[in-house]
Amino acid sequence: MSDPTIGIIGGTGKEGRGIAIRLGGAGFRVAIGSREPERARETAAELAAAGIEAMGDANAEVVAASDINVLSVPFRHAVATISSLHDAFRSDSLLLDVTVPVAFAAGQVGYEELPDGSAAETLRKHLREDVGLAAALKTLPAALLAKPERDLDCDTFVCGDSDAARARTMELLARVPGLRPIDVGDLRSARTLERMTVLLIGINRRYKTHDGRFRVLGLPAS
Amino acid sequence: MSDPTIGIIGGTGKEGRGIAIRLGGAGFRVAIGSREPERARETAAELAAAGIEAMGDANAEVVAASDINVLSVPFRHAVATISSLHDAFRSDSLLLDVTVPVAFAAGQVGYEELPDGSAAETLRKHLREDVGLAAALKTLPAALLAKPERDLDCDTFVCGDSDAARARTMELLARVPGLRPIDVGDLRSARTLERMTVLLIGINRRYKTHDGRFRVLGLPAS
Repeated sequence: MSDPTIGIIGGTGKEGRGIAIRLGGAGFRVAIGSREPERARETAAELAAAGIEAMGDANAEVVAASDINVLSVPFRHAVATISSLHDAFRSDSLLLDVTVPVAFAAGQVGYEELPDGSAAETLRKHLREDVGLAAALKTLPAALLAKPERDLDCDTFVCGDSDAARARTMELLARVPGLRPIDVGDLRSARTLERMTVLLIGINRRYKTHDGRFRVLGLPAS
Repeated sequence: MSDPTIGIIGGTGKEGRGIAIRLGGAGFRVAIGSREPERARETAAELAAAGIEAMGDANAEVVAASDINVLSVPFRHAVATISSLHDAFRSDSLLLDVTVPVAFAAGQVGYEELPDGSAAETLRKHLREDVGLAAALKTLPAALLAKPERDLDCDTFVCGDSDAARARTMELLARVPGLRPIDVGDLRSARTLERMTVLLIGINRRYKTHDGRFRVLGLPAS
């Protein structure tokens, strides 16, 4: 079987582009999705100029053509986005959620507490049942993702709604140079991962950097 | 001013001993506290035999003699412990909370969701007002702490109820060889840190190690 095309829902945003660059750099074909197909095609053309095999189209077209889709929209639009794509998803496809519910109040960045515990668990309730859901890449700095000349040199934490969803995501991300995926179990772990992103945003502010990211030390060499 | 004595409430447990070893190794005098003074004295004698300046006594005696106390008891005993020590704390002393509310269910380790958001925030409600509270060391593996021959080689995240409490803790932990304290802001960050401990417990199980610990990459050299 040939490699899957990876759709990037919201692929014209900073984080989406960064993820496209890294997955494209790993040799996957990427499909940039946007509510505005014209913008998606522009971004795809820019990526193609950088040597990445990319196409761009409306989110629904991209989703319908991809076995794995990355959801890279602001969390406040996430539920509406996947609901609008309800009929577009392929059966047995995988949605990779990278969203983080960030709350801004009084100049401070905080975690928006959600009734379902996390963005990933919230999305699970609104996603079609035959589409698998995993969460990963949440703690990776968008600024770093988007600079292909810089080594990612860090870990990413992967959780999912099934062993299959997790395994598929681990396999995908293990191919990204400089990135080590770490299996952290079921979707409830997203409660931790999303808070870790907010923790990093605070650390970045306090230490005046944009590059803060996690490494777990002490794991056996794989 | 001479270095403070660091009291370890629950210092005869595995984690408490490990913390005593590391703070003692950094040159601080440590005072091992226990509900059973005899056990505290035994642990102190063992530490002293290993070259650490240590004494042992009942928790209340230790707390009354220390400007900084580390709370190292299982979380389910934490509120009762500090309540029983209410009158013993020195005014303007600092309590360093290292507890994590871990829930065991069906062979799985999970985070016990608390009405106040975290162990540290729960403790804040029960601690005397003139005693400062910080949280740190929560994500450090007890097994590693207790082996002085092994380099800690990792970061620890520090949050606190005031700038002063955080600064005092940062200063204390910066002196522990191999450990880099990272400031993560106010006590709400403990919600993240405690969950990160549970995440690590899961990672350790999955990857068959006891040594999993965090490093933040991308921070400027201090």
